[in-house]
Amino acid sequence: MDYTIGDAFLSETIGTALLILLGAGVVANAILPRTKGFAGGWLLINFGWGIAVYAGVYAAYKSGAHINPAVTIGVWASGAEEFAPGIAVTAVNGFLYVVAQMLGAAIGALLAFLVYKKHFDQDADPAVKLGVFSTGPELRSYGWNLLTEAVATFVLVFIVLAFGETPAEVGPLAVTLLVVGIGASLGGPTGYAINPARDLGPRIAHALLPIRGKGSSDWAYSWVPIVGPLLGGVLAGLAARVYIG
Amino acid sequence: MDYTIGDAFLSETIGTALLILLGAGVVANAILPRTKGFAGGWLLINFGWGIAVYAGVYAAYKSGAHINPAVTIGVWASGAEEFAPGIAVTAVNGFLYVVAQMLGAAIGALLAFLVYKKHFDQDADPAVKLGVFSTGPELRSYGWNLLTEAVATFVLVFIVLAFGETPAEVGPLAVTLLVVGIGASLGGPTGYAINPARDLGPRIAHALLPIRGKGSSDWAYSWVPIVGPLLGGVLAGLAARVYIG
Amino acid sequence: MDYTIGDAFLSETIGTALLILLGAGVVANAILPRTKGFAGGWLLINFGWGIAVYAGVYAAYKSGAHINPAVTIGVWASGAEEFAPGIAVTAVNGFLYVVAQMLGAAIGALLAFLVYKKHFDQDADPAVKLGVFSTGPELRSYGWNLLTEAVATFVLVFIVLAFGETPAEVGPLAVTLLVVGIGASLGGPTGYAINPARDLGPRIAHALLPIRGKGSSDWAYSWVPIVGPLLGGVLAGLAARVYIG
Amino acid sequence: MDYTIGDAFLSETIGTALLILLGAGVVANAILPRTKGFAGGWLLINFGWGIAVYAGVYAAYKSGAHINPAVTIGVWASGAEEFAPGIAVTAVNGFLYVVAQMLGAAIGALLAFLVYKKHFDQDADPAVKLGVFSTGPELRSYGWNLLTEAVATFVLVFIVLAFGETPAEVGPLAVTLLVVGIGASLGGPTGYAINPARDLGPRIAHALLPIRGKGSSDWAYSWVPIVGPLLGGVLAGLAARVYIG
Repeated sequence: MDYTIGDAFLSETIGTALLILLGAGVVANAILPRTKGFAGGWLLINFGWGIAVYAGVYAAYKSGAHINPAVTIGVWASGAEEFAPGIAVTAVNGFLYVVAQMLGAAIGALLAFLVYKKHFDQDADPAVKLGVFSTGPELRSYGWNLLTEAVATFVLVFIVLAFGETPAEVGPLAVTLLVVGIGASLGGPTGYAINPARDLGPRIAHALLPIRGKGSSDWAYSWVPIVGPLLGGVLAGLAARVYIG
Repeated sequence: MDYTIGDAFLSETIGTALLILLGAGVVANAILPRTKGFAGGWLLINFGWGIAVYAGVYAAYKSGAHINPAVTIGVWASGAEEFAPGIAVTAVNGFLYVVAQMLGAAIGALLAFLVYKKHFDQDADPAVKLGVFSTGPELRSYGWNLLTEAVATFVLVFIVLAFGETPAEVGPLAVTLLVVGIGASLGGPTGYAINPARDLGPRIAHALLPIRGKGSSDWAYSWVPIVGPLLGGVLAGLAARVYIG
Repeated sequence: MDYTIGDAFLSETIGTALLILLGAGVVANAILPRTKGFAGGWLLINFGWGIAVYAGVYAAYKSGAHINPAVTIGVWASGAEEFAPGIAVTAVNGFLYVVAQMLGAAIGALLAFLVYKKHFDQDADPAVKLGVFSTGPELRSYGWNLLTEAVATFVLVFIVLAFGETPAEVGPLAVTLLVVGIGASLGGPTGYAINPARDLGPRIAHALLPIRGKGSSDWAYSWVPIVGPLLGGVLAGLAARVYIG
Repeated sequence: MDYTIGDAFLSETIGTALLILLGAGVVANAILPRTKGFAGGWLLINFGWGIAVYAGVYAAYKSGAHINPAVTIGVWASGAEEFAPGIAVTAVNGFLYVVAQMLGAAIGALLAFLVYKKHFDQDADPAVKLGVFSTGPELRSYGWNLLTEAVATFVLVFIVLAFGETPAEVGPLAVTLLVVGIGASLGGPTGYAINPARDLGPRIAHALLPIRGKGSSDWAYSWVPIVGPLLGGVLAGLAARVYIG
């Protein structure tokens, strides 16, 4: 079935909103005070983000379920002709995908904030509250952080583009597991944005929302989880064009 | 194959009983004294509840495997014509589904109580013993707790209604993963009832059973995990009617 | 493809040996001194046993992959005509299945002992060393322990018998997840034998093997994880005969 | 579709590089100082390695996705005629597979080093830094360590060779789960190399790379995770030839 770019815009918005609602949600559960999942550990966060992708991909079935500008740019770089059935790879469509993803990400962050509102009202380090929204490195070093994000996103986009070559009937479970694993393995230094919308949309939400005791939105770091994933996505698309053909 | 409403009633009863047996069971294992899984963590609880849904859905194959009034009301709101093959969407059938779910949930809670009987006989905070049966918020605030339950249930029902749009041959594993993720991500404030039967049936069981050193069944909170999930389910059904069509 | 009872005997032996090698292995890893996974938690043990079933079922493809007398007796009670394609349900065949399962379980326990030999040589509570081989209750009460084992095995066998009613193409993953969940939810009181061969075979191995500093094999408890699972298996088979037909 | 040995060489190189990037990555995340996943536990490491195999297998679709010399030798011992469609089982092809695997493993280790560069720059026990690259036993005993590696690899290769006998449409998820389980169950004594390339490639990288404060590459142990897995792989191939036929 073919969809219009209007369908796809709504699809990317809803899908990315669900991605961030569940993704920011699991971080809130693991690090905000007085939650059921407080200090639940890294694997909890990895499964939460993995299944956030699961929900987002099921919801975004009208747009090829990118819900990530790095995937959109990777599909473009791979030489594909359509983002989804009926949606041609054009600059305008790509731009609309990214706008929808950013919009959805901000909506998802707002929803996660509302779900955890009483926990945001508790006293906590401002960095913890920002950490629910956006990523930040454990050891700040823009160059190395950029490399980490680029490599992790390369793995994501390259394997997603390779999925079609090996038969399996698991649907969105495949990318879910991949995201669990990328988080477990490559998320240690920077918290694995691997998606510019995942980081920038919620960072904008953090800047705008009336969060009790909030601190800086750390704009100095904000370019890293945009440029790194886009770089990784383009390289993965080009590598897929050569290797997968 | 078509089933009768009598088949469906039994199916929902058995399925919901298994859901609560395994769901209350994993909470008992994680929080009651002297169990093998004591302090096993939030992810253990998430997997336990997720696979509780797995078992319940496999058992409830004659009724479309709702095992949750929020799903039943969501299917109704989505404009579907049948709850399951041969079972029309009518008020009477919907009512019977909910009665079966409540009955099954109470039976499941009784079974979980019996399985962990010797651990319920140990000294423990009455709130811990209630926590095996029913949910309670970490920070009590009826409005925000209601919102949390409504949003979490919206995600559950909306994605379940969207499953058919993306091919995958994983069967009940899909909703299992979704429930693991909703618990991980959105269960932090209230413990994710996301199912009125899951909360009310065991709460009635808690009130009736001779549990050593039990305290209040906390009826003041009991409407939240009923109204929140029903609200989320209806909104998800309506959203699916518009978006999925 | 049809197999002979000789094929099936070997199949059950190999499958059960792999089940116990991996199952006893994960317990050894979690509780013996100086392992990589020491104190790895209950969910680690649950996944270890779940995937132990996964490996065992893939190996035992010539015999219907029972690898558990409670499944064999449940298949018989369900009224099925064959244990596996070409293997009729007869007393002799059932007996040979159980002998093969016991033999395989003892072999698996021996292999797990050899894999962890240097860790068994360390000082540890004799109950810990026995715990790698066989189950034991946290709170000893033969009646309640029996009930726990019977209920947990009922869930296992009933859902396994219901698998065919809901289409899914995940193969042995289905029972794997079920075992993860039964362990998480119902394993708290007794350690979920849910399989007489899983408990008795390794207990015999424990009694015979030259384990440094070993204590009692706790024969007083040994009948519980035999009778409880057989009872649960029979009841599940009968329930499936009535409900699934 | 048939591929050439040149395709297969590149495929094995890329697949093994991804395997080690994600596999060494999860260990780095769990044990290097100041990572997000520090002290994340054994199950985190097991899932990280399992999904590392997942990514590697999807990438290596042109070569049958061995990414492990023990699998290559096991396929040979099983009597198969092709390593992958169009790639005959010959000594030259087997040799090229292993060279590609070693090359890929070293590249993957380099990438993991770069991703975690700032964390390698922190102060830490040299054994911890080596532990990101290569395996080492908790209790050193060459004979028992060898046996552990041989048994664990036997399970891996034997079950992989048995996959085709039980229908399932889960694709690379099957071996992923198997590796999670082998790690959980049999990884306790030696850290489960179960793959000579996984251990030797990164060990060479460790010896060559300018890692701050690095110690010995522990060459004395290096033969164990080569010989043990090869022995296990050959035995599994022979066992499969007899049992599976």
